[in-house]
Amino acid sequence: MSIDINLTDERPSFVTHLDCSISGETYPADQVHGLSGAGRPLLVRYDLDGIRAAVSREEMTARPAGLWRWRELLPVRHVADVVSLGEVETPLVPIPVSGGPHVLVKDEGRLPTGSFKARGLVMAVAMAKALGIKRIAMPTNGNAGAALAAYASRVGIETIVFCPEDTPEVNVREIAMQGARVWRVNGLIDECGAIVAEGAKQGRWFDFSTLKEPYRIEGKKTMGLELALQLGWRMPDAIFYPTGGGTGLIGMWKSFDELEKLGWIGSKRPRMYAVQAAGCAPIVKAFEDGVEHAERWEGAHTVAAGIRVPKAVGDFLILRAVRESGGRALAVEDADTLAAVADCARQDGLLLCPEGGATLAAYRRARAEGLVSADEEVVLFNCATGLKYPMPEAPNWLDRTQPIEWDRL
Amino acid sequence: MSIDINLTDERPSFVTHLDCSISGETYPADQVHGLSGAGRPLLVRYDLDGIRAAVSREEMTARPAGLWRWRELLPVRHVADVVSLGEVETPLVPIPVSGGPHVLVKDEGRLPTGSFKARGLVMAVAMAKALGIKRIAMPTNGNAGAALAAYASRVGIETIVFCPEDTPEVNVREIAMQGARVWRVNGLIDECGAIVAEGAKQGRWFDFSTLKEPYRIEGKKTMGLELALQLGWRMPDAIFYPTGGGTGLIGMWKSFDELEKLGWIGSKRPRMYAVQAAGCAPIVKAFEDGVEHAERWEGAHTVAAGIRVPKAVGDFLILRAVRESGGRALAVEDADTLAAVADCARQDGLLLCPEGGATLAAYRRARAEGLVSADEEVVLFNCATGLKYPMPEAPNWLDRTQPIEWDRL
Ligand SMILES: Cc1ncc(COP(=O)(O)O)c(C=O)c1O
Ligand SMILES: Cc1ncc(COP(=O)(O)O)c(C=O)c1O
Repeated sequence: MSIDINLTDERPSFVTHLDCSISGETYPADQVHGLSGAGRPLLVRYDLDGIRAAVSREEMTARPAGLWRWRELLPVRHVADVVSLGEVETPLVPIPVSGGPHVLVKDEGRLPTGSFKARGLVMAVAMAKALGIKRIAMPTNGNAGAALAAYASRVGIETIVFCPEDTPEVNVREIAMQGARVWRVNGLIDECGAIVAEGAKQGRWFDFSTLKEPYRIEGKKTMGLELALQLGWRMPDAIFYPTGGGTGLIGMWKSFDELEKLGWIGSKRPRMYAVQAAGCAPIVKAFEDGVEHAERWEGAHTVAAGIRVPKAVGDFLILRAVRESGGRALAVEDADTLAAVADCARQDGLLLCPEGGATLAAYRRARAEGLVSADEEVVLFNCATGLKYPMPEAPNWLDRTQPIEWDRL
Repeated sequence: MSIDINLTDERPSFVTHLDCSISGETYPADQVHGLSGAGRPLLVRYDLDGIRAAVSREEMTARPAGLWRWRELLPVRHVADVVSLGEVETPLVPIPVSGGPHVLVKDEGRLPTGSFKARGLVMAVAMAKALGIKRIAMPTNGNAGAALAAYASRVGIETIVFCPEDTPEVNVREIAMQGARVWRVNGLIDECGAIVAEGAKQGRWFDFSTLKEPYRIEGKKTMGLELALQLGWRMPDAIFYPTGGGTGLIGMWKSFDELEKLGWIGSKRPRMYAVQAAGCAPIVKAFEDGVEHAERWEGAHTVAAGIRVPKAVGDFLILRAVRESGGRALAVEDADTLAAVADCARQDGLLLCPEGGATLAAYRRARAEGLVSADEEVVLFNCATGLKYPMPEAPNWLDRTQPIEWDRL
């Protein structure tokens, strides 16, 4: 009864196999996988020649907009396994005043459950359904757990979610409302992850931590596919991405290679700027130290909870993409992040989440340091709706039973 | 630099004039208007023959999705006056478990500022810009004020917003963040409206109350246009709409007439169900009493703040549409609304706002009473993101420094 043909037409997936992101060792498709034997993320590979023969760039563009238009480039093989809560194509909103004349915000807060985590989780849950997984657990800073809960409940998969005890109340409640069992834990996200890993080892559930199963990255790569299509099959000069686990950055980078191999874009790549908070910047430190892996960041703290990730299993993939692209990893202070959020809302009417604010703060720094010029086209990722986050009080109160002092209003 | 041709192409508007919704008296286009001389809403009229000659249904469908694709059917004449924060086409999400196999939710929470108020306000602000208005005031239950603030700040118009003192904190803060001056008032929305009216009389600002300026309704009517297009130019059997001021219901009803006159849809109309809360049901009372106008509802109270509107200036337009359509006005208890919200989130993974929950509760009642049958296609309007509203606590806490009781998780 759904109206969107992307959700109802049978279309082939062109997955051939998976391979280990560090050793290159290959793994068969259509089986349950976690990390590779080397303990690193698996990457899904496609028969790109087959895709090129099956569908043109123009056909792709003519389909209804939304994440599921990309079926040939996604791992789900059967339409019966597609799950959806309405994954719209997120808009590119110019922020001429707080950003600049060529700055676009990709507003990911429009996705189901209010964040881009929906992209990764809709794919991972669809594959879990296809592969017969019945019980899933996950550590989360909030948004990923909400997306998991929503999609898993929709297909009848049981979910258990662990989040740091100071996770914003709205996230925890949302996860619970959407049918998951949610636990606040006295630890950070990697410590929540350790509980999930231990339970998975005991056979209690499947581990859905970022990059520990191979399909979230395929969902997140649709950010790159979508961006290319929206810009008329060209690339912006630079992308600023708020980087926690880094799935989105890694996924976009992968998607650009796939698009080039399909002949849908050229060889130009955006410079990728991985944005972190000064209070939790393991990737920035590794970037500056010139090393391939990041050390755990001790005492992590930032208002941007989504990027408070002390240790990322895909660290080397983030660092590689950033370096290959000619970009950088940048840390910003919370005060600059909050100022960016306030400016963008007041001047351009767009309420960013703190992580999105961090990308604007980083852009401003990059401009000030001459890393980016004013005439370059830049895309900032606002990964969640700003409505999920604390905002300053607005205390004006008016007693209408008293004479009104009009000039004060 | 924006990518969406709907925002950059010059396209004509086919507005001819406005007329009074009660007397039929006509008013010239392209001038500032409030209510008609008879104190009732003005309706914008178009040269539909001109539109038919200028653009086909197929051309309309081929344009990028989103509110601004409908330019010929909207009042804004010049592309320079178009304002946008990314008004995406909102998805139709099936809710097979909590609703039924033919129940679709139109999820309006995906619009800028998280509610369908963006549709009305983007249009009203664009027209205010076109007509040179510099200062706007508005009474709001929250969402309308947020949308006004965002768009007005974007085009440099000053805004003053008044809301009932118990308006959810998130709304008030959002309005302030987005650059408006916002006042909490010890009164309901119509009492806030009285302050706005008085200030307008004093020449302090322009009055942007629902239906008191003619363009919000034109923005809201895009819900009807969009729905027709999404369903392949046919109408559902029934629409359930959470009714406060009723702009959306009136706007959709108007859009269906325009579409039929264009020859883009046939004469079938959905039955329109105006949904109100038992604690504030003036339209339901008037419907049941068989009268044309509703009396003010005293002691209004409901968890669904958006439909806590004791008195609507467009009452007769709502009642006419509902009656002509063969629908009804229905009141639901808050407890049923909250149960509907909880069921939909847990069973179908979609978190509705309370107003959206009210439509699901009303649908269930209509099914139970035999007003709607199980095989009829029904669209429920979820007018805002559920994330803006209070949710029940989720109190599970896990101490990871102690041995974990795995079976409890
Ligand atoms: C709002 C927000 N931004 C950014 C991130 C970081 O995303 P990634 O894990 O892809 O680096 C998250 C992750 O929780 C998030 O919720
Ligand atoms: C979430 C929500 N639903 C419904 C309504 C009622 O809309 P209308 O004024 O078109 O009847 C409102 C208005 O504030 C609202 O915010």
